[in-house]
Amino acid sequence: MASAAPYALILAGGRGARFWPRSRRRSAKQVLRFFGERSLIQQTFDRLVPLVPPQRVWVLTNEHLQAEIASQLPRVPRRQILAEPAQRNTAPAIGLAAQILESLDPEAVMGVFPSDHVIGKPRDFLRLLKPAFQAARQGRMAVLGIQPRWPETGYGYIQLLKGSNKKSGALQPVQKFQEKPDQKTAQRYLRSGNFYWNAGMFFWRASVLLDALRRYLPKTASLLATLPRFGSRSFSDRLGEVFPLCENISIDYAVLQPAAADKRVVVFPAGDIGWNDVGSWNAVYELHRRDPNGNALRGDSLIHDSTGVYVDSDGKLVALLGVKDLIVVDTPDALLIADRRRAQQVGDLVKRLETAGRHDLL
Amino acid sequence: MASAAPYALILAGGRGARFWPRSRRRSAKQVLRFFGERSLIQQTFDRLVPLVPPQRVWVLTNEHLQAEIASQLPRVPRRQILAEPAQRNTAPAIGLAAQILESLDPEAVMGVFPSDHVIGKPRDFLRLLKPAFQAARQGRMAVLGIQPRWPETGYGYIQLLKGSNKKSGALQPVQKFQEKPDQKTAQRYLRSGNFYWNAGMFFWRASVLLDALRRYLPKTASLLATLPRFGSRSFSDRLGEVFPLCENISIDYAVLQPAAADKRVVVFPAGDIGWNDVGSWNAVYELHRRDPNGNALRGDSLIHDSTGVYVDSDGKLVALLGVKDLIVVDTPDALLIADRRRAQQVGDLVKRLETAGRHDLL
Repeated sequence: MASAAPYALILAGGRGARFWPRSRRRSAKQVLRFFGERSLIQQTFDRLVPLVPPQRVWVLTNEHLQAEIASQLPRVPRRQILAEPAQRNTAPAIGLAAQILESLDPEAVMGVFPSDHVIGKPRDFLRLLKPAFQAARQGRMAVLGIQPRWPETGYGYIQLLKGSNKKSGALQPVQKFQEKPDQKTAQRYLRSGNFYWNAGMFFWRASVLLDALRRYLPKTASLLATLPRFGSRSFSDRLGEVFPLCENISIDYAVLQPAAADKRVVVFPAGDIGWNDVGSWNAVYELHRRDPNGNALRGDSLIHDSTGVYVDSDGKLVALLGVKDLIVVDTPDALLIADRRRAQQVGDLVKRLETAGRHDLL
Repeated sequence: MASAAPYALILAGGRGARFWPRSRRRSAKQVLRFFGERSLIQQTFDRLVPLVPPQRVWVLTNEHLQAEIASQLPRVPRRQILAEPAQRNTAPAIGLAAQILESLDPEAVMGVFPSDHVIGKPRDFLRLLKPAFQAARQGRMAVLGIQPRWPETGYGYIQLLKGSNKKSGALQPVQKFQEKPDQKTAQRYLRSGNFYWNAGMFFWRASVLLDALRRYLPKTASLLATLPRFGSRSFSDRLGEVFPLCENISIDYAVLQPAAADKRVVVFPAGDIGWNDVGSWNAVYELHRRDPNGNALRGDSLIHDSTGVYVDSDGKLVALLGVKDLIVVDTPDALLIADRRRAQQVGDLVKRLETAGRHDLL
C-alpha cells in the first residue's frame, strides 16, 4: 500500500557561512565531515533509513550542492534530489515538496528534517518517529519538541498552551512559536517548564500542509499549484519561473505560527535525544572528544601549554604555543583564527568577503 | 696596496630555530626576507659593500645553506663562501678565516659581522666602520659597543673598566664580557652607565687574532695551523679532518674574555645605530610597521576586532576574529600559532620535533 510508509524531506539548501573557511558554496555545512567519516547529511540519512526507505527520501538543495549531495547519497534516487531555483527559505521549499508528493501519492505522509544537525542518540530518535508519523497520518500538524537543558539563546522555542500537562508524554497543543530569545527570556522559558526547543522537524500529510499553505500563504500556494506534473518535460522550466515569485519566509512563521493560533499544531515531546543544531565552530568543538587540556584536534599537531583550542587542518602540522580558546581552521586558500567565544561571528567575516568581491573564497 | 682595504667575515652558520616554521635547515634566519625584498644576509652585505669590496667579503656557513647564500650573494666570489665541516661556534670559525686571510695577505685587517641582525641606521653604521678598522690596523682588538636603550635580558653586555670616560667617544678598555643578565642585573647595568650591548662585531688584524688564539685557545690554534694552503687540492679534505677536533666555544669566552683581563681589548662606542639582533618572531613584529590596531600583516588578510598580531603567510588569506597578541606563521607544511610574549620558546617546539624524528619539518 503506497500510503503505508512515510516520506522524508531533507532540507539541504543552507549555506553554513559560520563554518567558513571549511564551508563554501560547493561544500556547505551539511556535506562536511565534522564528526567521523560521514557528513552531516549522510548521518541524517543514516538515522532515517531504518524507517524511511531510500526510495521515499527527497532532498531539497541548491544548484551548487546538488551534485555533491547526489554523490554522498547514492541510494537516494537522483531525480529526488532537487535544486531550488532560488533561495526562498523553508515555506516555499516544503510547499514544493508537498505539492510533488501529493501529486504522486495523495495519501503521502511526510516528515521534514534539517540536513545539518546532530542527534547524539539516534535510536531514541528513531523510536519517536513512528508515533510522530502516526499523528501526521491522523491529520495533525506535529512538530518535534526538544526538552531544553540550558537557557540557549541560539534556538527558537515552542510554547505550550498554559495548563498543558507536559509530563503526560502525549501530544500537546502549541500556543506559539517563539524566536531566539535573549538570555533573560531564555532563563524564564527554562524555569517555566512550558517550553520546548524547536528543532525544525515537522510531520504532516502533504495534503494537510497544502491546505494550510492555501490558508496562510495563498500566493505561494497558488503559484506552486500551477506546476505541471513532476517528471514532465516542462516541470523544471516552469519551476524556474514560479519559484522565485514565492514569498521568502520560513514555514514556522508563515504557516505554523498562524496554525498554532488556530489550535491546529501539536508538539511531540522528544525528551533528550542529544540534539544539537551545530550552530557554530564552537558547537563543533563542544561535540568533539577533548584531551585533558580541553583541546580538540583534527590532524597533525604539536601543542605546548595551550588549552581549549579546536584545530581543523587538512593534514599540515599545526603547532600551538601558549594560546587558549581558539578556533583554528586551515584550508588550502584560507586560514581562520578566531576567539572560540566569538565563533558565531564568523558569518560576518563571510559577509565582508562578499562585499569585497572575494568570490574565490566563498 | 693589498693591506689598504679591510676584509669582512660574515658569520652565517646559525640555524635560527626560533623562526620555525619559516626557518628550516636550508632556509635559516639569515637567508629569510623578513623586511622587504632583501634577506638579512643580503642586507648585511649591502651595509658593508660601500667600504669592503665584494672581492674581500668572506662568508662562513654550513653545507645546508652554502648554495642558497651563494645565490643570494652573487657578487661574492664563490670560493669565499665556505661551509664549516661541523658546528663549532664562533672561535674555530673566526680562527679558520683568520688563518686563511693571513696566508693570503699577512697584513690583512678583518671585521667580523653576524649575518642575521638588523641595523636601522646603515649610514651611521658605515661611518663607524672606518675608525674601527683603523684601530684594528694599529694592532688593537676592537669590539663594537651599542649604547643600551633598555634593560634587555636577551643580549650580552660589555663592561668598561671603572673610571673610563664613556663620553669621550674614543676607544675605551674593556674589563669584562658579561653573559645575558637577569632582569634585575640588566637594570643595574643600564643605570651604571658603564656597559654596552655586545653586538658580536669585532675588528682586528688576522695575525693579531691568531696570536691571541695561540695564547688562549692553543689546541684549536695548532689544529688550524696544520691546514695546507687555501685553494690547494688537499685543503678541504684536511679541513674536514681538523675542524671537528676544534673546541666548541664562542670567540667571546675563548678569546675576548681572557684578552680583556689582559687589557688587550678596546670597545668602540657605536651610539644608537638602530641595531637589533632579531632574536624572535616578536622582534620581527616590533621591527615592522603596524596598523592602528598594532597588527603587522604580510600577505592577504581579513581582520575583525583583533590587535597586536603578526601574520606571515605565503599568500593564503588569513582571517582573524577577536584575537590578540599572536604570532601566526603559515607555511605549506606547518602552521605556528603562538602567544607573542612567548615567541622565545619557539625553539623548544623545534627541539620536540627533533626528538620526535620529524626531520621532514626541520
